[in-house]
Amino acid sequence: MKARRLWLLASMAVTAAFLCLPAVPDAQKTKAAGDERGKCFMCHGQIKSMNENSRHAKLTCGTCHIADEHLKNVQSKPTTLIDHALCGKCHPDQFMSFLKVNYDAPAKKEKSVPTGRSPMQDKLLAPHGFTKEHNEPRAHIFMLTDQFVVDRYAGGRFQYKNGAWGIDATGKVWDILYDTGKDLPETAKAGNATCIQCKSSDHVLTWKYMGDKDPRAKWDRSSDVIAISKATNNPVGCTECHDPHGTQYRVIRDALIEAVDREGAATFARDGKTDLKIIDFRNFRKIGVMGKADSRMLCGQCHVEYACNPGFEFSTGKKIGFDDRRTNHFPMKNARDLLAHYKKINFYDFKHAVTGARLVKLQHPETETYWGSVHDRAGVQCHQCHMPKAKNKKGKTYTTHAMARPIHNVKASCLTCHPKSTVEQKRYQIETVQNYNRGKMRKAEYWLGALIDAYAAAARGGVPETALAQAREKHEEAHVLWEWWTAENSDGWHNPDLARETLTASVTASKKGIEILNRAMTSPKSDY
Amino acid sequence: MKARRLWLLASMAVTAAFLCLPAVPDAQKTKAAGDERGKCFMCHGQIKSMNENSRHAKLTCGTCHIADEHLKNVQSKPTTLIDHALCGKCHPDQFMSFLKVNYDAPAKKEKSVPTGRSPMQDKLLAPHGFTKEHNEPRAHIFMLTDQFVVDRYAGGRFQYKNGAWGIDATGKVWDILYDTGKDLPETAKAGNATCIQCKSSDHVLTWKYMGDKDPRAKWDRSSDVIAISKATNNPVGCTECHDPHGTQYRVIRDALIEAVDREGAATFARDGKTDLKIIDFRNFRKIGVMGKADSRMLCGQCHVEYACNPGFEFSTGKKIGFDDRRTNHFPMKNARDLLAHYKKINFYDFKHAVTGARLVKLQHPETETYWGSVHDRAGVQCHQCHMPKAKNKKGKTYTTHAMARPIHNVKASCLTCHPKSTVEQKRYQIETVQNYNRGKMRKAEYWLGALIDAYAAAARGGVPETALAQAREKHEEAHVLWEWWTAENSDGWHNPDLARETLTASVTASKKGIEILNRAMTSPKSDY
Amino acid sequence: MKARRLWLLASMAVTAAFLCLPAVPDAQKTKAAGDERGKCFMCHGQIKSMNENSRHAKLTCGTCHIADEHLKNVQSKPTTLIDHALCGKCHPDQFMSFLKVNYDAPAKKEKSVPTGRSPMQDKLLAPHGFTKEHNEPRAHIFMLTDQFVVDRYAGGRFQYKNGAWGIDATGKVWDILYDTGKDLPETAKAGNATCIQCKSSDHVLTWKYMGDKDPRAKWDRSSDVIAISKATNNPVGCTECHDPHGTQYRVIRDALIEAVDREGAATFARDGKTDLKIIDFRNFRKIGVMGKADSRMLCGQCHVEYACNPGFEFSTGKKIGFDDRRTNHFPMKNARDLLAHYKKINFYDFKHAVTGARLVKLQHPETETYWGSVHDRAGVQCHQCHMPKAKNKKGKTYTTHAMARPIHNVKASCLTCHPKSTVEQKRYQIETVQNYNRGKMRKAEYWLGALIDAYAAAARGGVPETALAQAREKHEEAHVLWEWWTAENSDGWHNPDLARETLTASVTASKKGIEILNRAMTSPKSDY
Repeated sequence: MKARRLWLLASMAVTAAFLCLPAVPDAQKTKAAGDERGKCFMCHGQIKSMNENSRHAKLTCGTCHIADEHLKNVQSKPTTLIDHALCGKCHPDQFMSFLKVNYDAPAKKEKSVPTGRSPMQDKLLAPHGFTKEHNEPRAHIFMLTDQFVVDRYAGGRFQYKNGAWGIDATGKVWDILYDTGKDLPETAKAGNATCIQCKSSDHVLTWKYMGDKDPRAKWDRSSDVIAISKATNNPVGCTECHDPHGTQYRVIRDALIEAVDREGAATFARDGKTDLKIIDFRNFRKIGVMGKADSRMLCGQCHVEYACNPGFEFSTGKKIGFDDRRTNHFPMKNARDLLAHYKKINFYDFKHAVTGARLVKLQHPETETYWGSVHDRAGVQCHQCHMPKAKNKKGKTYTTHAMARPIHNVKASCLTCHPKSTVEQKRYQIETVQNYNRGKMRKAEYWLGALIDAYAAAARGGVPETALAQAREKHEEAHVLWEWWTAENSDGWHNPDLARETLTASVTASKKGIEILNRAMTSPKSDY
Repeated sequence: MKARRLWLLASMAVTAAFLCLPAVPDAQKTKAAGDERGKCFMCHGQIKSMNENSRHAKLTCGTCHIADEHLKNVQSKPTTLIDHALCGKCHPDQFMSFLKVNYDAPAKKEKSVPTGRSPMQDKLLAPHGFTKEHNEPRAHIFMLTDQFVVDRYAGGRFQYKNGAWGIDATGKVWDILYDTGKDLPETAKAGNATCIQCKSSDHVLTWKYMGDKDPRAKWDRSSDVIAISKATNNPVGCTECHDPHGTQYRVIRDALIEAVDREGAATFARDGKTDLKIIDFRNFRKIGVMGKADSRMLCGQCHVEYACNPGFEFSTGKKIGFDDRRTNHFPMKNARDLLAHYKKINFYDFKHAVTGARLVKLQHPETETYWGSVHDRAGVQCHQCHMPKAKNKKGKTYTTHAMARPIHNVKASCLTCHPKSTVEQKRYQIETVQNYNRGKMRKAEYWLGALIDAYAAAARGGVPETALAQAREKHEEAHVLWEWWTAENSDGWHNPDLARETLTASVTASKKGIEILNRAMTSPKSDY
Repeated sequence: MKARRLWLLASMAVTAAFLCLPAVPDAQKTKAAGDERGKCFMCHGQIKSMNENSRHAKLTCGTCHIADEHLKNVQSKPTTLIDHALCGKCHPDQFMSFLKVNYDAPAKKEKSVPTGRSPMQDKLLAPHGFTKEHNEPRAHIFMLTDQFVVDRYAGGRFQYKNGAWGIDATGKVWDILYDTGKDLPETAKAGNATCIQCKSSDHVLTWKYMGDKDPRAKWDRSSDVIAISKATNNPVGCTECHDPHGTQYRVIRDALIEAVDREGAATFARDGKTDLKIIDFRNFRKIGVMGKADSRMLCGQCHVEYACNPGFEFSTGKKIGFDDRRTNHFPMKNARDLLAHYKKINFYDFKHAVTGARLVKLQHPETETYWGSVHDRAGVQCHQCHMPKAKNKKGKTYTTHAMARPIHNVKASCLTCHPKSTVEQKRYQIETVQNYNRGKMRKAEYWLGALIDAYAAAARGGVPETALAQAREKHEEAHVLWEWWTAENSDGWHNPDLARETLTASVTASKKGIEILNRAMTSPKSDY
């Protein structure tokens, strides 16, 4: 087909653009050639043991490292090449699929519009930065540009060089964006060094475990967000999930490793088991290596609820700054248990503009949502639906690295396991479940809004603080149970039972709050 | 086409599944064979007179009745087979079309979301059970499963056996659903024995006229809803509209027959005439038989506004229970006259959560809406648009028993009578009328919401009861005129003039209520 | 293709219908034939100088004028034929494309529904007539029927003769509509003689410059709207933009000419230059003639913000009636400067129902929006995107006079200048920009709504008038900056930078108003 041919040409052009970028020098032509592996391994024993007998054992160190000076003088740090395009030389199908733009996934589709996922967001999240701009997600290839240009990230100072023409551009982020140096009105500055760790793998060697300060680390949790943003060039890279030395599946996101340390590996693995092995590099950084792929863990590096910003203590209201590890934290809890967890670690994100309730701002908890769902119990992992197999032009099967939306890819994503179903049938079933959950989400929103209105009226009416405080607690409870589902990106499909349970619990909590306020409004004040 | 072939295979499989169900034994093989017709007719003279000379006269009684024991001992009740599949043996095209799943009609599409038919429903219907879950309609084949699983029916205790996989399953309802025995939060228990009479024909022989109590009746209006639900297996059957003995068109829904008795047959018929003949069976049940099809009457057995639940008296506020026939009542009134009718019979459904207005909960009044519309005046009946002719594989024409949505079937539904129009043109005209009415519906909703808000503020502000009572009356008026159109399933297309007239009247009533409250807010209290 | 053939047949039928209408007599057959040009030019020197050497020089005066009696007696006014069909005789492609119905552009799609452009319009514009019915636009061919039937125009008394069947009918407006003579409830009577000047060119010879009263003018600004409506037959005609004598591009809309006189032609032209030459006909009417096409000016005759109704003075609150030229006024100002302009000319449209803020009701300011946009700076004019070139059956290229929606016509509208892009890519970029702006529009709406609510609560709470007045001013500011974008028909695509700037400024103004009220609510009253 013509479209296909055009796409191939376009892809090749993009690839060429990637490969031509000065940031991807051909390291093999430098001196760190094959015969020096032994020399490298003299100091890098940990790497040696990972690399030996692996499929990458035949590559020279110079494939990825420019180390000429380092070999002469160990104080001179080598350069490590981390571009996708370098891996793409040997893995072109995976690389090309990662680059592909899905024009069916709309960009900048604001969640707070009536047709969006959270029509009442502006009221329910006020005055949080997410009310400035909060879009439905699109492809992985755009994760970094989308993050940098969003109006809540850096005061709106990063913009497309070419206006609308940049929207579907892929490549190095600073070839597409530029720093205007100017803040725009009605924006927020919610970006920070930690949140970039889920948008890029660029800083894997210059960021200490958990983002702690260290003379060896170029960046830490408190780093200037503009500076680290400008030093970031690529969306999350191949090495986020694939160990380049040993070729095993791996995780590098520190807060996940810390959660596994804290909660036990059972957190993720089916039947409570995983063979994740945590490796500590020189007391600087850690990675977790798996013998067998567990994509729930790989995707769980980012698709989880996390805290990555300053907050406040529930008990005292005291500010919690970047010096505190709670600003880089994966709770790894279910929707039901999340608020209790945050109360336990004594951390909340912001106070609601009207009620003053201490609210948690949720992030995309796809991983936690999926736990214990029908598909999880059947042993299905993320990649089976979201990274279906595809065939290249020569008929060779490969794993697509464009993250599929199963509803648009029913044949590849669903019918492999459900061969007796038809595409229209599976789509219908998915849509039905989502229709139902969207209804419940809207009801949860409606009642949260009603609680906020009731609170405002009660406060104006002079209701005693005891009742207001009780209502605020109900608001806190109802909020987490609702926002989970607007932050989670499957409209409840990942776990319909959990969605129903927690969204209705949100409604119940809101109604309880309203009842408290209504009772207080009509009671003599001495009741409180 | 492949899709068509697949569908045929699927249909045949479904048919087979139906035919294999143990609940459809092949009655012909029992003893109640042809030569015994005379014996049956000795006692069943009414049936004899209907059956003689009809196209079913050549069938043996045993085709549908298992009566071996009954023939020996009249005290032993015979079994009557009521499955669609039995009729489907001779009428396969009609049966297969009834079974067909229309994947373009979404399931569980909640009406209360912003893109739904009643975005403000949660506020406007609070605290009615419909706020728990209220979906846009889909095909007839799902009427029973959809009713049983909806969160407002039985506390959420009936669920799909296979989760999402049950959503498009057709067949006996208890092969698809099961009783969890557990109530779920944020559900209602609004189901009752009467409302099942519009979802199934299963109880035609065990339900006395109007659902009155009788020793001969297994069920009555006050029957336990869980028990009768579990004894119900099939969606509305062939015999709802077709008399199995005489093959005439017939109606069996008691409240319709009662309305025709009360209001006269002119209610439905064009030019005020119908040849409906009411037959009373042993002072137990009644049916109405027609010489000529009048599908407005056939569809009017369910597609009407009705009362089928306990309510309250306008005059006294006293509860009206199932012992009262008003809990099984078809008003058969126009949108303009409905409230007056309910005031006359002294019945309302619920009080609004905020204003306490005495509200009528509307059901799908398609029949009443259609009265006097352009199409009705032209002599068009329901089936011409909703059950268009189709051709089977052999080229034989039959009436499709899948209810068509004309907007998706313009060619078959509209162009037969409008041959000079194009599909896109007719679709455009329908959509335009619906666009306009949707606008008016939203405006009616908006002003009802504004009235409720004004009421809350006025009540908090200490406005005298006289003014509040006047505002509540306006709320009652505005509510019926609005809700009619969110319950009616054509977005006003069935009768655009009536839609405009009554929706704008709703807005006027709401504004009047607000004006009363605003005046009271700013007036000295002695004015009231 | 069949569809195309059908369309051609349909078009031909329509054309025939147009040509057969008694209102288009074949003037050439009258006596005002070619050899009389000299006689006509004896008195009509201005016309002579325009006509000489033009492409229309070879036409006789009788082509468009029936002047037999006039030639005998100058007091007897000649008849001038203004129907599109007359021009269509020689320019059939342009004429046929103008007639074509675009079934993808929905009719009567109310803007105030949740999926519409202004979901909160009923609250934000109350009690303005636009809250009665305000639809998204469709094709030019419908501009007059759509205007006359809209519920805010003439109390709903003009209706389609054939109900829904009239919705896509084209032709003389009074063949499609009729005057019921009855006002409908919940309608407005906002139509007036001036606003017709943007919907029809029919009155060009009977309307004095600016609609001033004059014995020579049949109509003026204060004319009875029902009477002038019934004397109007055609949507805006060919002569609106094309001078029939000289064939130059021209403008005839008086308020535009007046604005150019007032503000200078630089208003529109690239680099501040235009060769517009204003011609005054006998101190009665004026036209502006261009040597070179500037479609920004041609389209700017209507696609601008204008005042065309009675209003009030900011300074005194005094009513401004049709005797005042401010009721026919093009501000020709940017979104940023518009409110200041209206304050300067001391004119506002209506007071808000709740806050009493003095609001400007915006009209479609596409022209002003476009100023200084990326495309404008690149020298692109309206027609390049909206009137792309097409080919007729014989392969001849012509300018389509159906106004294209570029997003539905990417190939013709965009790829001519952006040949390296694909259709899906350009559509994606446009949609993205619109998604973003729609988000900002909804936020601006949300905060305006919040300001209105806060005002109502504050007023009920007895906040001093000083604070209320400050809040009202913020409302006035925020309103113009929001409504501009719901009136403008590109969802911000015409000028994304201006959209972002002004919509966020609207949010800021609303928030400031809320802050003023909240402060006043909690402050001791002596603070004010």
